[in-house]
Amino acid sequence: MNTLFFNGKLLSFADGEDYKIIDNGAVAVAGSSIVYAGRKTDPGYDDSLRGIDFDREIDLKGKLIMPGFKNCHTHSGMTFLRSAADDMKLDDWLNKQIFPREAHLTEEDIYYATILAVMEYLSGGVTEICEMYLTPDSIDRAVQDTGIRCVQCGCMNNFSQSPEKLRDWYDRLNKGSDLSSFRIGIHAEYTCSEELLKETADVVHELKAPLYLHMSETASEVQGCRERHGGLSPVEYLDSLGLFDHGAVFFHGVHVSDDDIGIMKSRNIAVITNPASNIKLASGIAPIDRYQKEGILLGIGTDGPASNNCLDMFREMFLTSALAKLRENDAAAVDAADVLRMACSDGARAIGTPECDSLKAGKKADIVVLDLSYPNMQPENNIVKNIVYSGSKQNVYLTMVDGVIRYEDGEYKIGFGREEIYKEVKKTAERINREAGFA
Amino acid sequence: MNTLFFNGKLLSFADGEDYKIIDNGAVAVAGSSIVYAGRKTDPGYDDSLRGIDFDREIDLKGKLIMPGFKNCHTHSGMTFLRSAADDMKLDDWLNKQIFPREAHLTEEDIYYATILAVMEYLSGGVTEICEMYLTPDSIDRAVQDTGIRCVQCGCMNNFSQSPEKLRDWYDRLNKGSDLSSFRIGIHAEYTCSEELLKETADVVHELKAPLYLHMSETASEVQGCRERHGGLSPVEYLDSLGLFDHGAVFFHGVHVSDDDIGIMKSRNIAVITNPASNIKLASGIAPIDRYQKEGILLGIGTDGPASNNCLDMFREMFLTSALAKLRENDAAAVDAADVLRMACSDGARAIGTPECDSLKAGKKADIVVLDLSYPNMQPENNIVKNIVYSGSKQNVYLTMVDGVIRYEDGEYKIGFGREEIYKEVKKTAERINREAGFA
Repeated sequence: MNTLFFNGKLLSFADGEDYKIIDNGAVAVAGSSIVYAGRKTDPGYDDSLRGIDFDREIDLKGKLIMPGFKNCHTHSGMTFLRSAADDMKLDDWLNKQIFPREAHLTEEDIYYATILAVMEYLSGGVTEICEMYLTPDSIDRAVQDTGIRCVQCGCMNNFSQSPEKLRDWYDRLNKGSDLSSFRIGIHAEYTCSEELLKETADVVHELKAPLYLHMSETASEVQGCRERHGGLSPVEYLDSLGLFDHGAVFFHGVHVSDDDIGIMKSRNIAVITNPASNIKLASGIAPIDRYQKEGILLGIGTDGPASNNCLDMFREMFLTSALAKLRENDAAAVDAADVLRMACSDGARAIGTPECDSLKAGKKADIVVLDLSYPNMQPENNIVKNIVYSGSKQNVYLTMVDGVIRYEDGEYKIGFGREEIYKEVKKTAERINREAGFA
Repeated sequence: MNTLFFNGKLLSFADGEDYKIIDNGAVAVAGSSIVYAGRKTDPGYDDSLRGIDFDREIDLKGKLIMPGFKNCHTHSGMTFLRSAADDMKLDDWLNKQIFPREAHLTEEDIYYATILAVMEYLSGGVTEICEMYLTPDSIDRAVQDTGIRCVQCGCMNNFSQSPEKLRDWYDRLNKGSDLSSFRIGIHAEYTCSEELLKETADVVHELKAPLYLHMSETASEVQGCRERHGGLSPVEYLDSLGLFDHGAVFFHGVHVSDDDIGIMKSRNIAVITNPASNIKLASGIAPIDRYQKEGILLGIGTDGPASNNCLDMFREMFLTSALAKLRENDAAAVDAADVLRMACSDGARAIGTPECDSLKAGKKADIVVLDLSYPNMQPENNIVKNIVYSGSKQNVYLTMVDGVIRYEDGEYKIGFGREEIYKEVKKTAERINREAGFA
């Protein structure tokens, strides 16, 4: 399948530089890759397209074409729990509402609940997710069956998954299509015994793999670790066990010390921020301005739909900037352009898929088209600020992943009907409420 | 024009009580008013509809029908400034970017810029706004011409408007249609001389009118007042001048003391919170949880598009709850149901239009229909939490104001084409950039 987009505004990111927008832009896609992105009138356009038969030539009529959003931390399978429990103390929420229900989940439940999330991603311009949930095999199937790109990681802890299982998934799930990959991951410091962490360090060393994990999300988590481990923060403690010897990806990173940041820099650790979840659960605001100044690579995620409750990168972009401004007491902190680069480009590199970070020849064709002809995108004083501060899922016109259009003008192209998926997830929610004694 | 909605989920608020949702709900509208809202099978349905010829009978097919959102604080005409200046210190933003441009505005500029905002309101389910900007006459025209409901107030200060003008607008603009009304309003304490404030107190007393104004938005505003006025806060100072003798509506109310709250309770003062603007401008988080506990009536607003930058009540609802949770360090603070009631019902009463606060016979037909068949609204574990925490403008299917459908399934019914309005506002933005020396 080859697709030519023409007559659009083309927004992309040069390496390490600011974004740029060009009019009369064209993007040519052959198979899963971009073969040309630039002005139609530039030299190279004709050469790049020579010999390619396009199945579709799409006149964008001035719409904006740009790299898709990367939702760099989520638990997609938790859609069945959306709005089932909110407005509660964090401990009650987790221990009395979430864990008792999750205990009844099957692989098949998570398959359908993940597909529901994928529908929301696609209609919100998300082309890639970094996923952490309980059943990597059925999640992998959901990803392959719907065609979204997914970097999956383990969420091993004392109660589920194991180093052997992580090794097994790592071997098997990295052999499939380009769309889906698997990384070594643990739930968090506070849910893993030292023995388990040491075994994980062995796996990390053997595979020379970065570790993906929830890190320093709440103040009490950090305090608990310091109490248990001779004053060490979670960052210090896990680093002392060698777990970051091949890098790491931290989800949250809200409560960190200067010493933590020193380790993060020396180990090349990336941070994924989840601002909506962090405020709704009263966890705090991550020091994004500081991270930027320290040169730490940043991505943005929604976290799972049980805590957020929606999977909307527009909301997260606004919050990444606005909460940084609030935290620093400085309306100039964390610029919109930096936030858009995190959401579309830096995030892809943070989670280990640099091949998806921009629109240029040789990169993967993970693309979103935004319709600027909505009132919230007018006037076009600054398109990037419009997207980050005023953008909405309403503006998403088309989402392409790996060269395949998966959402276009309100219609999903994923091989499932809406009603089929809604019915399955409703069934799951109802059955689990019964089994867990909530109904 | 008479309209019958049937086969919907009907959400409404009983006086002072929690919301309720009923299936197989019907809402009958005759002229500008609701004549029936309830189950189609309830006694009273047939009686209520007797003798009414319906121009349209709309099968909602399970969609949700509820009171429209009330955007209780905005400066609609600032759309021409959207994304023209962000990511700056507040003082630089106001003094170097906003004020110099506003100096070049004409009545006609504001007319079109307001219509652009109205389009965004209607496609976001907003049926009523509380508007404060520079040219009440052309704003009134924009409101009448597009059919949104608008409570307008003055923004008098040392540099524009005057007590005489407020009196004149009060007399003239309250005589027109039900859609539009005018209230006595000043910009804020810090932009008005004591002489002007005393003259305003005379107007307030003569008309027995509540005063609408920006209040205690930033810490420095409060500190400045205390320095200028013998330690009095803005609330105390203005109250000492008699300005709240007939009540008041405070926009923002971020930084208040216990004494301030005492005055607010004794004067029956309502507060409109603007959470997105308050964090983006690094102003702070209003004490919504405290206000609730003190029984202060609350509404929600977007503030203007120059600071926010979008006019999206879904974002504001999420933030009203989530920021309260962050502020109180308590994930149980400020429940979703309370927030929805603020956005749809309490807000209407706060700004002085109790006739628009719910769907029941005799109330104004200000209605929004939400389409729940989007993935972000599934599963329906709790529809109200879905709306407040996961809702998006994408879900708005229909908006009716004063009995007239103004937005339906992506189409505006306001007598203007999109392109016409976009062109006018673009022209304004470009001309003012030139005149103010920015281009």
